[in-house]
Order: sequence, then C-alpha cells, then structure tokens
Amino acid sequence: MRVLGIDPGLQNMGWGVIETDGARLRHVANGIVHSGKGDLGVRLLRLCEGLRAVIAAHRPDAAAVEQTFVNKDAVGTLKLGQARGIALLAPAEAGLEIGEYAPNAVKKAVVGVGHAAKDQVQHMVRHQLPGVDFAGADAADALAIAICHAHHLQSRALRIKVSA
Amino acid sequence: MRVLGIDPGLQNMGWGVIETDGARLRHVANGIVHSGKGDLGVRLLRLCEGLRAVIAAHRPDAAAVEQTFVNKDAVGTLKLGQARGIALLAPAEAGLEIGEYAPNAVKKAVVGVGHAAKDQVQHMVRHQLPGVDFAGADAADALAIAICHAHHLQSRALRIKVSA
Repeated sequence: MRVLGIDPGLQNMGWGVIETDGARLRHVANGIVHSGKGDLGVRLLRLCEGLRAVIAAHRPDAAAVEQTFVNKDAVGTLKLGQARGIALLAPAEAGLEIGEYAPNAVKKAVVGVGHAAKDQVQHMVRHQLPGVDFAGADAADALAIAICHAHHLQSRALRIKVSA
Repeated sequence: MRVLGIDPGLQNMGWGVIETDGARLRHVANGIVHSGKGDLGVRLLRLCEGLRAVIAAHRPDAAAVEQTFVNKDAVGTLKLGQARGIALLAPAEAGLEIGEYAPNAVKKAVVGVGHAAKDQVQHMVRHQLPGVDFAGADAADALAIAICHAHHLQSRALRIKVSA
C-alpha cells in the first residue's frame, strides 16, 4: 500500500510517498511543489497541478494532510487555508480517502512524543525510511505525515482483523 | 463582457454572473454551490466541480472573489481559506484573471459607502440588475462582487483610453 503525505503551504507544498507492507515501511519519493510568483489563482493552480503530477506518477492508495491552524495572524491562517484547500482537493479528485492529523499527532506517531523538535522528527523519519534523502524540510514533514497515516491504517487493519 | 463574482464559503459558495456593456449592467445568472456532507476533501471537490460547471455554462471573461479574513477564530479562518482556495482555483484553471476585493470595497462600489448594511447592498444590486432574483444571500453577495469588478474593469478601460 502506498501512502502520500502532504505538508501544505502556499509557497512550498511538501509531499512524500511511502510504501507499507505490514509494519515495514519503504521510501518511494519526496519533493516540494513551489507556487512561484504571480497572482494567487495562478499560484494555487501550480500547486494543484504539481500534486496531480505526483499522484499520477506514484499512484498512492491513501493520502494524509497536516491539520494546522495555529497561526498568530488571520492573514497567515487564510493563506495556509487556501493552500490546504488545494492539498485536499488533489487527492479527492483522484478518489483517495484523506487522513488529517494535527502536528502533535504526527510527532507522536514518528518520534513517540507530541512535542519533539524538528530535527528529532527528521532523524526518526530517516531511521524508518533507510536511505531517504529529503528534498527539503517541508518534504521531510510530508514523509512524517505519511508515516503517521501508515501507522494509523495499520492499527485500523489490525483492529478489523481482531474483531473479525 | 461577462464577469463572474464568487462569495467563498465552505458550506455555501455563492456565485453570480453579469454582463457589462460600458456602464450598462445585465444580470445573467446566480446561484449557490453547496458542499454538502462528508469528508472535507470530497466537500471541496463538490465546490470545485460546481464552479467549473458554472464557468462552462456561462463562459465569463473575468472573475472576482471576495477577500475576507476577518474571522474571530483561527478555525473559521482556516475553513474559509480552504473554500477560498477552491474559489480561486476554478477560474484560474479556466485561464481567467481574478480580481480580489475586500467586503468594504464591494459595498463602496455597489452602495457608495463602505459600511452599508446587507439589505442596502441587496437593494442596490436589484436596482443595478433589473429583474434579478437571488438564489440566496450568498448569491446576492456574489453579484455585488461581480458589479464591483465590472466597475473596476470599466474605469481601468477608461484610464487606458484616456492615456492612449
């Protein structure tokens, strides 16, 4: 099963794809889609087309998007929201179910504690996906989100097995 | 020239299309796209498909989206942002230039003052688009946004004429 993780941002949209086979994880690919310069609509379209290309190339079976809204200012939250709308639209267009996780839930799933530092998260992502090279911090975050969702899907599958 | 106005909202996305021929305005159509129930990605997809259908049916030459972020809470602003991302994406996909206007700019363009009440705005929209029937308050707001953009485009055209 392939899982796509997305770390939404208006400038840089991080993405990461992993493969899960039971408890074993494997890195497939990661990267960052840049919105570049120009009108907001054009920038959002670039993000959407970038994510569509990632989905077409790597054919994930599930997707997960980080759920952030803790911004200091309303302007920043609105910008993030606009990017997040695109991060949810692209997988929905492909018919994918989308998991949503708060940053602390992602850290807890990857590191074991909800208040881990960024480099601790990256260290554990490297540990769980041997040989991975990060395209950037946003791509590393996206891989962490994918790992979090893979754990969630696996425990759900186990629960279904136990209750069956 | 046809102008599409969009009043973004996660539950209800208001839209309105008007035709402008110099200073004369004519109502073409208005309506509301509902996101309905379900996962956020699916709801955003419904909004996007609804706007795409509006654009395909009414073939606007320009679009305008309300620029709101004055929400009390970050959760509300994020929700609005997600819907607004879709409201900007759909016209951008169709290659339309998109105007963005703050609510006060819309009121000023339609009523003449920036702090007009909602029923004053609707009254003036009815006055400028004779025979119009509103599909709802969000559709009336969308028509007001379209009128505001039409005024803006007209004064831009006049400026270009004068300086040519």
